[in-house]
Amino acid sequence: MSGIEDLLREDLRGKTPYGAPQLDVPVQLNTNENAFAIPEDVAAVVAEFVGRELRGLNRYPDRDAVALREDLAAYLGHGLTADHVWAANGSNEILQQLLQAFGGPGRTVLGFMPSYSMHPLLARGTATAFVDAGREDDYTLGPDFVRAAITEHDPDLVFLVSPNNPTGTALDREVVEAAYGAARGLVVIDEAYAEFARDPGSTALGLLEGRRRLVVTRTLSKAFAFAGARVGYLAADPELVEKLLLVRLPYHLSSITQAAARGALACAARLQSEVDELKHQRDRIVKNMRAKGLPVADSDANFVLVGGLRDAAAVWRAILDEGVLIRDVGLPGRLRITAGSEEETAALLDAFDTVLERRPALFDLQEQAK
Amino acid sequence: MSGIEDLLREDLRGKTPYGAPQLDVPVQLNTNENAFAIPEDVAAVVAEFVGRELRGLNRYPDRDAVALREDLAAYLGHGLTADHVWAANGSNEILQQLLQAFGGPGRTVLGFMPSYSMHPLLARGTATAFVDAGREDDYTLGPDFVRAAITEHDPDLVFLVSPNNPTGTALDREVVEAAYGAARGLVVIDEAYAEFARDPGSTALGLLEGRRRLVVTRTLSKAFAFAGARVGYLAADPELVEKLLLVRLPYHLSSITQAAARGALACAARLQSEVDELKHQRDRIVKNMRAKGLPVADSDANFVLVGGLRDAAAVWRAILDEGVLIRDVGLPGRLRITAGSEEETAALLDAFDTVLERRPALFDLQEQAK
Repeated sequence: MSGIEDLLREDLRGKTPYGAPQLDVPVQLNTNENAFAIPEDVAAVVAEFVGRELRGLNRYPDRDAVALREDLAAYLGHGLTADHVWAANGSNEILQQLLQAFGGPGRTVLGFMPSYSMHPLLARGTATAFVDAGREDDYTLGPDFVRAAITEHDPDLVFLVSPNNPTGTALDREVVEAAYGAARGLVVIDEAYAEFARDPGSTALGLLEGRRRLVVTRTLSKAFAFAGARVGYLAADPELVEKLLLVRLPYHLSSITQAAARGALACAARLQSEVDELKHQRDRIVKNMRAKGLPVADSDANFVLVGGLRDAAAVWRAILDEGVLIRDVGLPGRLRITAGSEEETAALLDAFDTVLERRPALFDLQEQAK
Repeated sequence: MSGIEDLLREDLRGKTPYGAPQLDVPVQLNTNENAFAIPEDVAAVVAEFVGRELRGLNRYPDRDAVALREDLAAYLGHGLTADHVWAANGSNEILQQLLQAFGGPGRTVLGFMPSYSMHPLLARGTATAFVDAGREDDYTLGPDFVRAAITEHDPDLVFLVSPNNPTGTALDREVVEAAYGAARGLVVIDEAYAEFARDPGSTALGLLEGRRRLVVTRTLSKAFAFAGARVGYLAADPELVEKLLLVRLPYHLSSITQAAARGALACAARLQSEVDELKHQRDRIVKNMRAKGLPVADSDANFVLVGGLRDAAAVWRAILDEGVLIRDVGLPGRLRITAGSEEETAALLDAFDTVLERRPALFDLQEQAK
C-alpha cells in the first residue's frame, strides 16, 4: 500500500508549508498587517452590509460579484468600470487565477526576487515554471535590468511588485513601461501597498489605457485593514478579465465577503486617515534608523527594510527578546519591520536602542547614512 | 501585438465559463440550493459570531482554521478530530486543492459521468487529465463496473459522488470498498448532499478508519442552507490533510467565513428540521412523478432526476413558461428538479400537470412505474 507522501506530486515532496511564524508577543510587526483595528463605526457599517445577506445565504452568491466590482472600480478611479475589475479571496487567489489562465504547464512566469515570497509558490501550485531574474545589487530595479531579463527569458507572464515587498520601494513608471514594451505576455504589477506610496501618482493604474496585457493587482488587506476578510482584486482590460471566468471556481467569492468588502469601501475616506498615520510612523522609523546609522531603503509601503546588521538573525532574536516581533526575510544583514501604532513604533525604536547599546557587535553602523 | 485570446492557455481557448442560467423566475428549482432562507434565530447567531471578528479584521485569519475544524469534526462524529478535517471556500476549492497536491500535469483523475459537472473543469484548471469512465445504462454504479474502470485506467485520483448529482442516488458501501481496493491513489467521495440520504448510514465516513487514501468531502451549502457563505470541507487521514497545506493559499479562509460557519454549526439541530422537510418534499415529488408515469431514480439528495421525457429541452422550456425554473443537465429524456418548499413543490407539480395535459406528445409515459 502506498504511503501518502508517495502519492504527492513529485515537486511537493519534502516541502514545508508557507508560513510566517505566529508567536505570542506583545508587539507584532512581522506580517505587514495594518496596525489599527477596524474603527467601531466602520465595523458597524460592515456589520450592517453583512447582516443584510444572512437570511439569503441559502442561495449562491452573485457569481460575478458585479456590485462589488462596481464599487472597486469607483474607488480606483482612472475611468475604470466594473468590466475592468475582478475580485477574489485575497490577491493570492487573483494571482493564482492569472497563472491558471495564462500560465500552467510548459509556461513561465518571470519574477524579480527578493519580492513577495508567495510568487514562486503560486507558480508551483499551478505548475507554471518560475524564473527568478534577481534584482540589482541594492535590490532596486531599473528599466534596463528588467528589459534585459524579459528579453533573455521570454516569459508568458511577468510579476513586478510595486511598492516591492520586502524592500518597500515603488517602481518608477519607466520600469513598468520597459517591462510592457519588452514582454509578449502579461505584465502583472502587484500593488498591494499602493495606498501607502509617498507619491500617490506612482500607481500603474494610469498606464492601463491602451496596454491590454497590463494587469494591476490590489488588496483590501493593507490600506483597508481588511486582511482577515480576504479581498484581493485586479484592474485590467475587460477581455482579459473575461478570461478569468474560465478558471475561477464558480461562486468563489461568498455573499458575506462581497458585502463586507462593500461596507469597507463605503468607509474608504475614514480608513485613509489611518493610512496617513501609518505613513507617518513609517517615516519616523526610516528617519530614526538612519539617524542611528542603519541604512533603510526608501519606503512607499507600511513597512521598511533595515540594513546595516552584521548578524540579522541574532538582531531579530534580540529584538524579539525585547517583546517586539519583526521579520527575518532571509536577506543578509537586513530585517523587515512593519510600521505600527505610535506606541508600537516607540517600543520598536526602544528595542533597537537597547540592543544597539548592549550588543554593538551585531551591527555595522554607517556614519549618518544619508 | 498579441491578442488576449492568443495568450490564454491552449486548452482554454474558445471555452465558455461554467454557469447555471440565473433567470428571474418566481420558482427557482435549478441549482440544488436549500429552499429555505436562514431562520431569523440562526441568522442572529451567525451575526453574533461574525460580529466578534469585525474589529480584528486588520489581522490575518487563523491560517489553519483550527476552531472551525474542531467544530466540523464534532459535527461529523465517527471519532474524527480537527486533524482529520480541512476546510476551504466551498468544496470546489477542497477538490481543487486535492488535485493540486495529488494530481497535476502528467496525472489522471477518473470520474463517472454524468456526475458533478465541475469535476472535469476542476481537473482542467489544475492541468490534471480527466478520464470519464461513464456509468451503467441506467446511470447507476456497481462495484464491478467501478473496479473494472479503475483497473483499466489506473488513475492517481478517483472521484465518486454519493449521493450522485444529477441522479440523486447514494452509492452502496460495496462500491466505495471496491473502488478503494482497486485504486492505488486517492479515492474521493463527494458527499455534498449526504444529510439528505434516506439511510443516514450510507456515508463513507465510517469507512475512513484504516483507509488512508480515502477522502470524504462535504459542504455547508446544502443541509446548512449556507451556499452563499462558501464553506466546503473534507475528512481524511491527518497525514493527507497535512499535505494540503503545501498547496492551499495562505490565509485562504477568511475570519468572517470561519466565524459564520461556526455560527451555523452551532445551529445544526435547528437546521436539520428543514432538511427533514425538504426530504419530505423530495419524496412527494418522487411519488407524484411516478404516479404520473414518469420514472424517477431513487433520491438521497435534495433533488430528483425525472425521466420519461421525449423532448427534455421542450419540457424544460414549457415548465419555465409556467414560472418554474428546473435544470436541463443535458441527459436525453431527463430533467433535474430541486426539492423546494411545500408551495414551490405544489407549483412544480401543477406545472407538470399543465404541460402533461396540454402537450402529451412531449412525454413517454410508463404504466405506473414502480
